[in-house]
This record gives sequence, C-alpha cells and structure tokens, in this order.
Amino acid sequence: MLKGTKGASTRDAVLGHALALASEVGLEGVTIGTLAERANMSKSGLFAHFDSKEALQIAVLDEATTRFVAQVVVPALKQKRGEPRLRALVENWLRWSRAEFMPGGCVFVASIADLDDREGPVRDRLVECQRDWLDTLTTSVRLAIEEGHFRDLDPAQLAYEFLTVAYGSHLVGRLLRDRNGEKRVRASMDRLFASARALRN
Amino acid sequence: MLKGTKGASTRDAVLGHALALASEVGLEGVTIGTLAERANMSKSGLFAHFDSKEALQIAVLDEATTRFVAQVVVPALKQKRGEPRLRALVENWLRWSRAEFMPGGCVFVASIADLDDREGPVRDRLVECQRDWLDTLTTSVRLAIEEGHFRDLDPAQLAYEFLTVAYGSHLVGRLLRDRNGEKRVRASMDRLFASARALRN
Repeated sequence: MLKGTKGASTRDAVLGHALALASEVGLEGVTIGTLAERANMSKSGLFAHFDSKEALQIAVLDEATTRFVAQVVVPALKQKRGEPRLRALVENWLRWSRAEFMPGGCVFVASIADLDDREGPVRDRLVECQRDWLDTLTTSVRLAIEEGHFRDLDPAQLAYEFLTVAYGSHLVGRLLRDRNGEKRVRASMDRLFASARALRN
Repeated sequence: MLKGTKGASTRDAVLGHALALASEVGLEGVTIGTLAERANMSKSGLFAHFDSKEALQIAVLDEATTRFVAQVVVPALKQKRGEPRLRALVENWLRWSRAEFMPGGCVFVASIADLDDREGPVRDRLVECQRDWLDTLTTSVRLAIEEGHFRDLDPAQLAYEFLTVAYGSHLVGRLLRDRNGEKRVRASMDRLFASARALRN
C-alpha cells in the first residue's frame, strides 16, 4: 500500500496507514491504539506525531483532502471550462473512489455516517471539506451555464445532485457488489449531464 | 422513544432501544454490552433474548424491515398502480428516514458504511433486505411503464437511481444540516420522475 514511501517522512507513512484504515472502518475507528497496531508502531511513537485522537483524525482528513485536490481537482483544471471540465471532475472522482490507497473505498463516504451525530472539530473539518467540494462543483456548473453548455438552471441544485448520486452509488455499490454497479453509476451521471443540457438539444 | 410499549413484550421494547441505537451509531455499534447500557438492563437479561451479537443485529434488521414494510410499502399499495404508487413509496420513504424511533436517521444507511467490508450473516441480511427494496422499486417502475405513465426505460436502472439519490441525500443532509436539504431532495426526486416521463410530454 505504501510503496515508494521509503524516502518519505515517518509521519507521511503513518498517515498513509491511517487513511487506509479510515477507508475501511471510518474515521471514528482511527485512534492512536488502532493505528499503532495497523502501522506496527508503539503508541508513544505515534503520540510524538499526533497528540490526540482528534488531531490524528483531522490530520487524516487533511491528507485525504490534499490527495483529493491533487488527483481530482487539479488535473480537471487542464480541461476547457464548462462541461468538459465538469466531466473531468466527475471521471477523476469515480477513479478516486477506487484508489489503491483507500482499500475500503472513499474515506469521506466511509466517515459521514459515523460522524453525522457527533459534534466536535473532526465533524467540523469533514463538513468544511465537503462544502468546499460542493462549492467547486457549483462553480463548475455555473461556468458550464456561462459557456452555453448547460441551460439556465440552479447550479447549487445540480452540484448537490452530483454529490448525492456519487455518494449514494458508492454506498450501494460497496454493499451490493453488483457487477452492473459501474455501468449504473455512469448511466446516472450521464442522465444528470443530459438533464442539464435538455432544453438546448 | 418507547412510549406506549408498556403492554408490549420486553423483547419488543429492547428491540426499540436497539433500533434507536443502531440509527445513531450503525448496526456494528449495537452489541449486548452497548444495548444493556442503553436499555438499562443486565447483559444476562439480554442474553435470554439474543444469544449472540450477530443474532441481536439480525433481529434489529428484521425489526427495521418489518416497520419499513408496514410504514412505507403497505400504505403505498392503496394507491393506483404506476406513478401514483411509486410517488407514495418515495413520500413514505422520505418520512421513514425522519421517524422518531430512529433519532440518528435511517438505520439502513447508518449501517451500510460499517458493514460493507465485513463478511458474515449480518451483512448478508442487510444485502438481502436492500435487494428486496430495490426489487419492490423496480416492480413499481415496471408497472408505471405498463400503465403508460413512464416511457420505455430500464426499470432496474431507474430503481437504482431512486435508491442512490435517497441514500446520498440522506447522508449529505445529515452531515451538512442544510436548511435547503429537504427542498433539494424533493427536487432531485421530481427530476427523476420528470426524466422517466420525458418522451411523453
């Protein structure tokens, strides 16, 4: 899972383990104790890097967000603004949810159900990064309208629908392990794009 | 939470507590120990009703499924077959996810992320009841096509989209606590209905 990290700092290697663990059991399951076992380190060694469970969980979210931006958002910015860029965001996002470093699937989806009822800084950070992603999607939809690719619709509503379709599909796909899952999520996304263009075609 | 259960058996009352707990922390968090604390009972008292954690978790799923059928499916059967019945299923389903007896939201959504990676009888039962619900939705879509309410589309795909939109919306809504959440999920469902009718209008 952590090939090529030989030269990276211990902290980075540990965060890799923590991200994999969070993907499998959700962020709430990542503690100094469970991570020590997973990374084969002592608890005291981990406390040198993270001084509490909350600090560790927030560091995992920040690491996930950094990778998400690098792998999903940045490459899409090379695409023409409007529908091509939104398409690239969606494609990169689907690839993200199958990343090798997250063997249990998207760490954000895996963590929402556990954190939705618990107040505190970890929940707050998760909300913040999900709002940022919704804002990015909303901006991308708005540009698609400005470019004339999409009709005049509510950008926040369409962005919300991309988010909920992606998260719902991820959840259902991981549960049912349906061989048609990949085909179904793509058809859902295609329908969203088609509905946004509807009045122009 | 359990008003009016005075006359019900202890087992039913305990299952009510277990369902509420599962709604908050997911099924994996419901054990003989956590439930004993929640229901203010002894562990040995609980073992008289459920002889293992798995048996308890499956009993919670069965209880949830029984209530789901009674509150979501059965009342919808009174509606005319086709789109009216599917509408009723969707409306009842949205109400279900806000039921008082599930203070942490839908117990199925709350449990999927925890159980997706774990093999065993509890996961198998969760998959089974979700497949049953997908089949019910698929049948309802098929009837809407037969009645001429919907165009000739793939019933399984549309049923999958209703499921993923509902689950994704539930997840995102509980995380973001957006005051527009209710409006957004309704708009998403309306768009699904509209897209199914598209070629007829």
